[in-house]
Amino acid sequence: MPWFQTTVRLAARRRGFHLVTDEILAAIPEIESLSVGLLHVFIQHTSASLTINEDADPDVRVDFETAMNHAVPESLPYVHTMEGPDDMPAHVKASMMGSSVSIPIANGRLATGTWQGIYLCEHRNRAGSRSVVVTAWGEAR
Amino acid sequence: MPWFQTTVRLAARRRGFHLVTDEILAAIPEIESLSVGLLHVFIQHTSASLTINEDADPDVRVDFETAMNHAVPESLPYVHTMEGPDDMPAHVKASMMGSSVSIPIANGRLATGTWQGIYLCEHRNRAGSRSVVVTAWGEAR
Amino acid sequence: MPWFQTTVRLAARRRGFHLVTDEILAAIPEIESLSVGLLHVFIQHTSASLTINEDADPDVRVDFETAMNHAVPESLPYVHTMEGPDDMPAHVKASMMGSSVSIPIANGRLATGTWQGIYLCEHRNRAGSRSVVVTAWGEAR
Repeated sequence: MPWFQTTVRLAARRRGFHLVTDEILAAIPEIESLSVGLLHVFIQHTSASLTINEDADPDVRVDFETAMNHAVPESLPYVHTMEGPDDMPAHVKASMMGSSVSIPIANGRLATGTWQGIYLCEHRNRAGSRSVVVTAWGEAR
Repeated sequence: MPWFQTTVRLAARRRGFHLVTDEILAAIPEIESLSVGLLHVFIQHTSASLTINEDADPDVRVDFETAMNHAVPESLPYVHTMEGPDDMPAHVKASMMGSSVSIPIANGRLATGTWQGIYLCEHRNRAGSRSVVVTAWGEAR
Repeated sequence: MPWFQTTVRLAARRRGFHLVTDEILAAIPEIESLSVGLLHVFIQHTSASLTINEDADPDVRVDFETAMNHAVPESLPYVHTMEGPDDMPAHVKASMMGSSVSIPIANGRLATGTWQGIYLCEHRNRAGSRSVVVTAWGEAR
């Protein structure tokens, strides 16, 4: 059974939610060699995260930031504050969204719905590039 | 290594949290042919989601709706509003719950705990049926 | 393709967020025999959960408890209350964090970032030990 794995450095983004589907797929063209399988994308950080959501209207990504700031406010009485007020909420948001996404592969393509894309959720005010490990495995076509 | 994959149309449900374990297992009886493996269930939508939780008391599913409406209120100043006040919260709740669940297989059965079931989380006021891709792979018994 | 699977009883913990990376890795030393693969950790309970987050500063785990209590308060008008005021929020938090984590394996080791560890999220006031199913599979080195 074939396995493919690579590490991708996602370009640095401002705080918010960003579509990275194309960056990830470009790194693992071997998906097309699989008749059935899984794609697993894992972020090696704890203040940024990955999720799958609507990829058509950029306003959705703006509203994600609004909603997650409401759910995990910076104003709570945190103890871990030496890295700034955005740091501790970033950790919590990262766990709410998750450190990985996994997507079925069918006939050499991701079996995503029409409107689904992969988001990089950048929870820090200032962050550098983010490293993700991309793994695909399955049955050869 | 055997792979099994199918797409299931889950019956349309009202907004809320719904047990779908039986619908999913009925679609993939090949689980019983695996001695060890994984089951992966992926929803092809961005305003409904999947999670694993308590499958015994229906009140738990009622309270899930209460709690998620509190965490992601419809009253926030969203920009993406043309699909109604329930739409944007639906996207955020979907990412909080997640687009997939994965469950270990042992001796031809899901290795879930006594009280665990798979929930379809329907976050929209009015939605049709929802499509999920069910994939199982592992070692043959 | 080799598969390894075992069940681990995590020692009982007080309510809060706890690092369990070492307990889990000790149970599945076969990871080192895989050149590429996946580790999947699944908790067989619905009022405790698993996530990946910062493993260096214990204050982060304290603040996780603060933030999750804010996101899912005990004071909401829950229906399912016969197991105590901490029970229903425990279920919701468990689904927000998730019942499983999955981590890529590369060259016989977890491909985690420098600061990433596996958390047991214990959402109940009084809980016993928690059972997790640990599964690894991949390509032999």
